[in-house]
Amino acid sequence: MSYINGKKFIVDIFGESHSGAIGVVINGIPPGVPVDIGDINAFLARRRPNGGVHSTTRRESDTAEMLSGCLNGVATGAPLAVIIRNADVRSADYENIKRAFRPSHSDYAAYVKYGGYNDYRGGGQFSGRLTAPLCIAGSIALKLLKERGIKVTAYISSVGQVKAKSYADYADIEKLLTEQKIEEIKSSLYPLLDKSAEEAIIEEIASAAREGDSVGGVIECAVTGLLPGIGEPLYDSLEGLIAKTVFAVPSVKGVEFGDGFGITSKRGSEANDPMYYDGERVRTYKNSNGGITGGISNGMPLTFRAAFKPVSSISKEQDTVDADKKKNVKIIIDGRHDACILPRAVPVVEAAAACVLLDLIL
Amino acid sequence: MSYINGKKFIVDIFGESHSGAIGVVINGIPPGVPVDIGDINAFLARRRPNGGVHSTTRRESDTAEMLSGCLNGVATGAPLAVIIRNADVRSADYENIKRAFRPSHSDYAAYVKYGGYNDYRGGGQFSGRLTAPLCIAGSIALKLLKERGIKVTAYISSVGQVKAKSYADYADIEKLLTEQKIEEIKSSLYPLLDKSAEEAIIEEIASAAREGDSVGGVIECAVTGLLPGIGEPLYDSLEGLIAKTVFAVPSVKGVEFGDGFGITSKRGSEANDPMYYDGERVRTYKNSNGGITGGISNGMPLTFRAAFKPVSSISKEQDTVDADKKKNVKIIIDGRHDACILPRAVPVVEAAAACVLLDLIL
Amino acid sequence: MSYINGKKFIVDIFGESHSGAIGVVINGIPPGVPVDIGDINAFLARRRPNGGVHSTTRRESDTAEMLSGCLNGVATGAPLAVIIRNADVRSADYENIKRAFRPSHSDYAAYVKYGGYNDYRGGGQFSGRLTAPLCIAGSIALKLLKERGIKVTAYISSVGQVKAKSYADYADIEKLLTEQKIEEIKSSLYPLLDKSAEEAIIEEIASAAREGDSVGGVIECAVTGLLPGIGEPLYDSLEGLIAKTVFAVPSVKGVEFGDGFGITSKRGSEANDPMYYDGERVRTYKNSNGGITGGISNGMPLTFRAAFKPVSSISKEQDTVDADKKKNVKIIIDGRHDACILPRAVPVVEAAAACVLLDLIL
Amino acid sequence: MSYINGKKFIVDIFGESHSGAIGVVINGIPPGVPVDIGDINAFLARRRPNGGVHSTTRRESDTAEMLSGCLNGVATGAPLAVIIRNADVRSADYENIKRAFRPSHSDYAAYVKYGGYNDYRGGGQFSGRLTAPLCIAGSIALKLLKERGIKVTAYISSVGQVKAKSYADYADIEKLLTEQKIEEIKSSLYPLLDKSAEEAIIEEIASAAREGDSVGGVIECAVTGLLPGIGEPLYDSLEGLIAKTVFAVPSVKGVEFGDGFGITSKRGSEANDPMYYDGERVRTYKNSNGGITGGISNGMPLTFRAAFKPVSSISKEQDTVDADKKKNVKIIIDGRHDACILPRAVPVVEAAAACVLLDLIL
Repeated sequence: MSYINGKKFIVDIFGESHSGAIGVVINGIPPGVPVDIGDINAFLARRRPNGGVHSTTRRESDTAEMLSGCLNGVATGAPLAVIIRNADVRSADYENIKRAFRPSHSDYAAYVKYGGYNDYRGGGQFSGRLTAPLCIAGSIALKLLKERGIKVTAYISSVGQVKAKSYADYADIEKLLTEQKIEEIKSSLYPLLDKSAEEAIIEEIASAAREGDSVGGVIECAVTGLLPGIGEPLYDSLEGLIAKTVFAVPSVKGVEFGDGFGITSKRGSEANDPMYYDGERVRTYKNSNGGITGGISNGMPLTFRAAFKPVSSISKEQDTVDADKKKNVKIIIDGRHDACILPRAVPVVEAAAACVLLDLIL
Repeated sequence: MSYINGKKFIVDIFGESHSGAIGVVINGIPPGVPVDIGDINAFLARRRPNGGVHSTTRRESDTAEMLSGCLNGVATGAPLAVIIRNADVRSADYENIKRAFRPSHSDYAAYVKYGGYNDYRGGGQFSGRLTAPLCIAGSIALKLLKERGIKVTAYISSVGQVKAKSYADYADIEKLLTEQKIEEIKSSLYPLLDKSAEEAIIEEIASAAREGDSVGGVIECAVTGLLPGIGEPLYDSLEGLIAKTVFAVPSVKGVEFGDGFGITSKRGSEANDPMYYDGERVRTYKNSNGGITGGISNGMPLTFRAAFKPVSSISKEQDTVDADKKKNVKIIIDGRHDACILPRAVPVVEAAAACVLLDLIL
Repeated sequence: MSYINGKKFIVDIFGESHSGAIGVVINGIPPGVPVDIGDINAFLARRRPNGGVHSTTRRESDTAEMLSGCLNGVATGAPLAVIIRNADVRSADYENIKRAFRPSHSDYAAYVKYGGYNDYRGGGQFSGRLTAPLCIAGSIALKLLKERGIKVTAYISSVGQVKAKSYADYADIEKLLTEQKIEEIKSSLYPLLDKSAEEAIIEEIASAAREGDSVGGVIECAVTGLLPGIGEPLYDSLEGLIAKTVFAVPSVKGVEFGDGFGITSKRGSEANDPMYYDGERVRTYKNSNGGITGGISNGMPLTFRAAFKPVSSISKEQDTVDADKKKNVKIIIDGRHDACILPRAVPVVEAAAACVLLDLIL
Repeated sequence: MSYINGKKFIVDIFGESHSGAIGVVINGIPPGVPVDIGDINAFLARRRPNGGVHSTTRRESDTAEMLSGCLNGVATGAPLAVIIRNADVRSADYENIKRAFRPSHSDYAAYVKYGGYNDYRGGGQFSGRLTAPLCIAGSIALKLLKERGIKVTAYISSVGQVKAKSYADYADIEKLLTEQKIEEIKSSLYPLLDKSAEEAIIEEIASAAREGDSVGGVIECAVTGLLPGIGEPLYDSLEGLIAKTVFAVPSVKGVEFGDGFGITSKRGSEANDPMYYDGERVRTYKNSNGGITGGISNGMPLTFRAAFKPVSSISKEQDTVDADKKKNVKIIIDGRHDACILPRAVPVVEAAAACVLLDLIL
């Protein structure tokens, strides 16, 4: 029972894909902080199906309503509750898969765990829709971080076989990520450090979509402006807490920091980041450790990657089991699904990182 | 302040590399369960410097002493406290690095976080020694899991540039990991799925050691015998909890499940694991998802990888800063250090995974 | 930030007296358990202003709406979210007390704590209205306990100077509390173990009301059917957890178990409860310890008392301070207030106890 | 499993009456704070059997040893672990009561809860000895509070039938509790607000002791110097958290704040504490609410009472059951027991309150 995350900025998410509403209760917003439903809805718009080649044709209006915790536009110190009504629900789409489990979906594991009582429609509590409440919390966290000079910027670094630029391709990601550059990334349909791969990415997704298939990819996130000293050994390391929260996002199968798995083939003398004084500030000449040493921020940009598997819902025929019939069956998944979740997952990764960082900083 | 992990099998670790003792307090061991200090010490022996080419010449006797929670060889239901006295301490080795921070160590981040009051000797609370109390908890968890038919087996899949066999190289890792095979792996100086890479690994480490350098690598872990239904959405997913705990192990920079980052370049139709009835049991034809869907075990082997960076302590000269002198300096790290931590980290990864799994199962 | 309670049956409450809605998110309801909005609303009706002499003339319709966690009438295993829209709000009543703090209300303490940003209308997050979401959780907990043979019965044992019967007046409270007797108590406007004091209680309240004053009193709670072994030393003792939760109810200033403060003037030989076998069952001849020894249930009825101070809102003139004017002022509190909260607080005490017990039993 | 308390000043207690050691691991001590083992042992001396008429003849040397978290006399920021070795153990005293449960002790409830595996010797984990680790944490908390101008003073207000002075007897307890007065109270064998009842208290205890019986009583605690704004609604109210922690002390059966149960017979106009400006400071003319409104400190002295039942271990013959023989038996409890625990419990109550307050303030 673990829909609650954080110790000071406490995010409690609820809802199911086809329940009356989804929502979030947030404890720990400092009283007096401006909270604007317009800002929240603007952030939610970034994760909404938006007409790209990758997108579901479902309409998700996702208009947030604030229920408590805010008076005259500022946080009161009481829990902030925000809900989004579910609409455009085609529950019938899911009747035929009620017990014929979609391969690599939560269906079978959830069926066992909840004794068959879980809401199977649209993935129920496992639906990607639950990332909307996470984005609500994240939009508030991002704003509070920004006021403290901390900027969280996520973007796509690969889709399927197509590689785009990575933070590892830049000597100084901090210099690259100007206010303007960040704005440009965040407002893109395909958020990238460098536009040159955009066309190839669109084609990679479109080609999968044409075949009724799907593609995954890697989302990177760079946090700039973070002071050293954030993160708690042992179990609440920056890496540990970010990973735990990012793994709450459906489809994530790996999280790595700095050079990540790539660092394992280096010698210590290559992997270590030598230090120097840049005026008063301590910096490192490079950043293989992703801004984290000993589980604590060291003042360099915090960089990490999340591996997203391809969307499990594909319209190609697949082998599976039917628990009612107790036999092997073939399944073709109807419904309207994203061919690639990455463009919509970029703000979700930002939200996840922001919630963790704010929680540690408050 | 986060030395405490778990909700039902609660592990609270304390100590510093050069403090009087390190130890662990465990809440949640079911009363009546046999607890044997001999078994604990036998498990600790696996992470002890053991004469391989990779090892420090420090002697770590690491003899555990039980302080409470056990009467007549069985758990009483009260907290089990176990300590290990620190010995063979050469604190003087660390005086010269007190304020000249070792690159890519916790030194600088900790100095900022703790205002310079942290115990700098041997890395203090950031020391790899803190993995010994984790192993104490892990050894108990592994035993309780084994009684439930769950086997946790970690091993090395790469060291530096040398690749050894991975779970991904086997069609059915469950079949491979017989009781005997597991025993063989666990008792090896270099735990591997297949011995053929052993010589190359030893040479990779030895060559780094000769140069005063270090190497990292990847440790894999396969959990067999796990029933479906373990893990909690959203934030307490199997992936999230295991990652959080594995990131508590020093030097880990990435954690991935199943095909991990490799899955991102596949199409959905390749990445999905088709399902079938194997008698009564539901299985998948392959296991790209590492036995986890929707954050919950699906009955297939749980497989994951942890990326270990090369040991940061190398004897090569490095650039760094000295906070007392407020200037850039060169550092050569004395002391006795491992050229490669992986052989000793294998039981630690097992312990981390076991603590998480037992916590979820109790 | 502490609107969240419990470890397995986790209750997260939100809302303010005059916010859009109040509500609760509950994690941990076992999947498959029937959840009925009609039952919830029926329970809520017990705490509603109900026409007695004690009651506010505010209408609180308090109709609950379920947002998630329930499909086809049974819990899905996902968080259950339930809200109650706020209505009949006369915010203007509170404008004149915005900075002239009502004596012995939360007003001043909250003003300091939240820097003046808290919602002052109707007490905001400190309002007695927040006990409605607690009752929603409690109604579910009570039902789940009842299925396990555990009955939680609260009632009034004193109002102002009028004493009614106490559990201490009965040799065997278990025998007294038949199904029928419990039903009779729960359906009364003034829930009492014995009706003989009812008239005097009504007059005590009415007399205070006539004078623009208020009265407090004591609510007792008896839990029957609880097996021995429930409760956790040290900090999660039955006494500690129940007290913590009951103190969440506004106006409570004391909690005692069994003979409570009265036991302090007895000798050990009088205070101890001698034990005997009643068939297979171990019982005690009397129950001065309120069914709890060592913080754990011992199989006898769990009995406790909660001291409710008189409602702080009275229409008599009082001395107070005005933080805007920075001076001493007189205050007369307008608005519609209860002269005695006890009749409405009885189901709240039941709810609080039930949430704790279910959390420990699950 | 609840030996852990607090969110920022986290106290994890372990041990059993006759285990190798008892101890505590504390997370959250700010780095740089002086920690002195001498101060800790001095505080422990206050709860030691000390030659009064009330005391056991057991010797409890209770010398604390620090294992980690402290370097050069100051906290490092790592967990502080402190243990006390158990000695002078006469386990044989307890063999005959192994299954003949001592009335109103934890014995029977623990036997059921732990399936008979609990350490029955000396009450095991339920022993009053576990208050020694609580005092270790408390001694550190008290010191940190004192540096912030907050003084926590506990004392006896009644023993058996003998009443001593209460905070309720003083118009301004803040004025009474000068540095010198507090020192005088804390250094007394029988800590009292006023010495006039001392002789009668000693005789009350001695008379019970002569008869092989025991007496209980009430300990009061007054916290002065606390700023307004401390405490968290709903579940982490000052009342709730203090009660939960004080109920962790064996023998406590009731906790009340300010006028406590006495307030229930007052009218609102008497119970309310009118407010006024005393210079810049907001005060109340009286303090029936014990310095807490809305669960939050209001700047007046925090006052509370804890009801201690008489020690359950008496040498008079009592009725009980024997679980091995499955029949009713008589029991006479041997061993060396306190006739009155109150003098030794006074520092324990201070420690409990201090841990809660520091946790909220950090």
